Amino acid sequence: MLQSDERFDYLLKEDLRIIQNDAVFSFSTDALLLGHFTNVRKRDRILDMCTGNGVIPLLLSDKGQNEITGIEIQPQLVSMAQRSVAANNLSHRIMIQEMDINAIPKYFKPAQFDLITCNPPYFKKNQVHQHQLEAHKIARHEIYCTLDDCLRVANHALKQGGRMVMVHRAERLLDVFTSMRRYQLEPKQLHMIYSKPGKDAQTIVVEARKGGNQGLHIAPPFYMYDDNNEYTLEMRRVYYG
Amino acid sequence: MLQSDERFDYLLKEDLRIIQNDAVFSFSTDALLLGHFTNVRKRDRILDMCTGNGVIPLLLSDKGQNEITGIEIQPQLVSMAQRSVAANNLSHRIMIQEMDINAIPKYFKPAQFDLITCNPPYFKKNQVHQHQLEAHKIARHEIYCTLDDCLRVANHALKQGGRMVMVHRAERLLDVFTSMRRYQLEPKQLHMIYSKPGKDAQTIVVEARKGGNQGLHIAPPFYMYDDNNEYTLEMRRVYYG
Repeated sequence: MLQSDERFDYLLKEDLRIIQNDAVFSFSTDALLLGHFTNVRKRDRILDMCTGNGVIPLLLSDKGQNEITGIEIQPQLVSMAQRSVAANNLSHRIMIQEMDINAIPKYFKPAQFDLITCNPPYFKKNQVHQHQLEAHKIARHEIYCTLDDCLRVANHALKQGGRMVMVHRAERLLDVFTSMRRYQLEPKQLHMIYSKPGKDAQTIVVEARKGGNQGLHIAPPFYMYDDNNEYTLEMRRVYYG
Repeated sequence: MLQSDERFDYLLKEDLRIIQNDAVFSFSTDALLLGHFTNVRKRDRILDMCTGNGVIPLLLSDKGQNEITGIEIQPQLVSMAQRSVAANNLSHRIMIQEMDINAIPKYFKPAQFDLITCNPPYFKKNQVHQHQLEAHKIARHEIYCTLDDCLRVANHALKQGGRMVMVHRAERLLDVFTSMRRYQLEPKQLHMIYSKPGKDAQTIVVEARKGGNQGLHIAPPFYMYDDNNEYTLEMRRVYYG
């Protein structure tokens, strides 16, 4: 089941296995936070864009019995994700598809999903370092999909009133908000993730609603570490439940 | 010096007196927070829009020897502000002018200011309660000036690279960001004010830079009260220094 350089890691809270490969893709804490802050309702049809090795579908599979579609452009990651799904006996309700998200409007009818999650590439194309591995470049930089692409496509795939939950870097909050409003995805809830007290936020999780009314809730701050560099109680809950 | 129903309150940290009148206008904690989060540099020419009873010019006067202009549309508030300035012997460097901020482009040449502060009316016009006092309606609702007006005019009055610091309700963060970008005022710093731990943020303070590069800093959260409903240390600093 594992190919060379691959290993099984564990999602402890969910009691699931996931294939990782540091030379290709390993999920970050941000993926865990996106999973943590995403509320799943019983009848939600779920789409995860830029699914990577399938970490978000796996995390969300533990929150209900929903069907989840994951879209990923890199074949090697699609393979890892599909084998992880199989290893956890979830192939009956997690579908991983190899696809450029920009092709979603071509292959999916409008308004097919109630909930879309996305942990997109964070960095602009001009910030690529030449020495980076190709797979890392694609996963981390806006080479095949920009923030604006994600939200334009989400508008197509999401039904009216449906929710989009996205994690991104704090410094790009403005871009996230601007693109969301451009595509009628009204930000309703903002979570700020702080590495530790006294520092600037490094990560944001934004929940938007397609066609939603204006009015944002700014949630209490979330701290990953305390002053002693230990995980906070809330961070331990994310990891261990 | 005081007219009927007026009283002197005290800005304790600044050791200044300020005329208040609950039937007309009394400054809120948000004004103190705006003053607190506004950094004044030695050569800043400062404009405070929607100055009310002049609380922001008074607070900022303690941060340097700068000249400060305050603009207010309500004559009764202009009078209160001017008398407060005189009572503190600050008339040589705080000018309070009765003016609709929308007239600023007519009476001020472009790019005359390095720093603009604004504690604007928070509520939309359609949220006015009929039983409210007229002075309160004007101060709290977008009757004579909208958020968008403030930022359009700020773009005119601010020099390239100049800073705009605005306080607003958390739920309107999206509107603030959207209008700021519309007028080339790039948000650079965001402060979230929480009443107490575990609750949503209620107030935001945003610092923008005219023509600034993209990239937002989300500052550590600011709490007004602790779990015992006592002022936090940081809030006591705002009040008492």
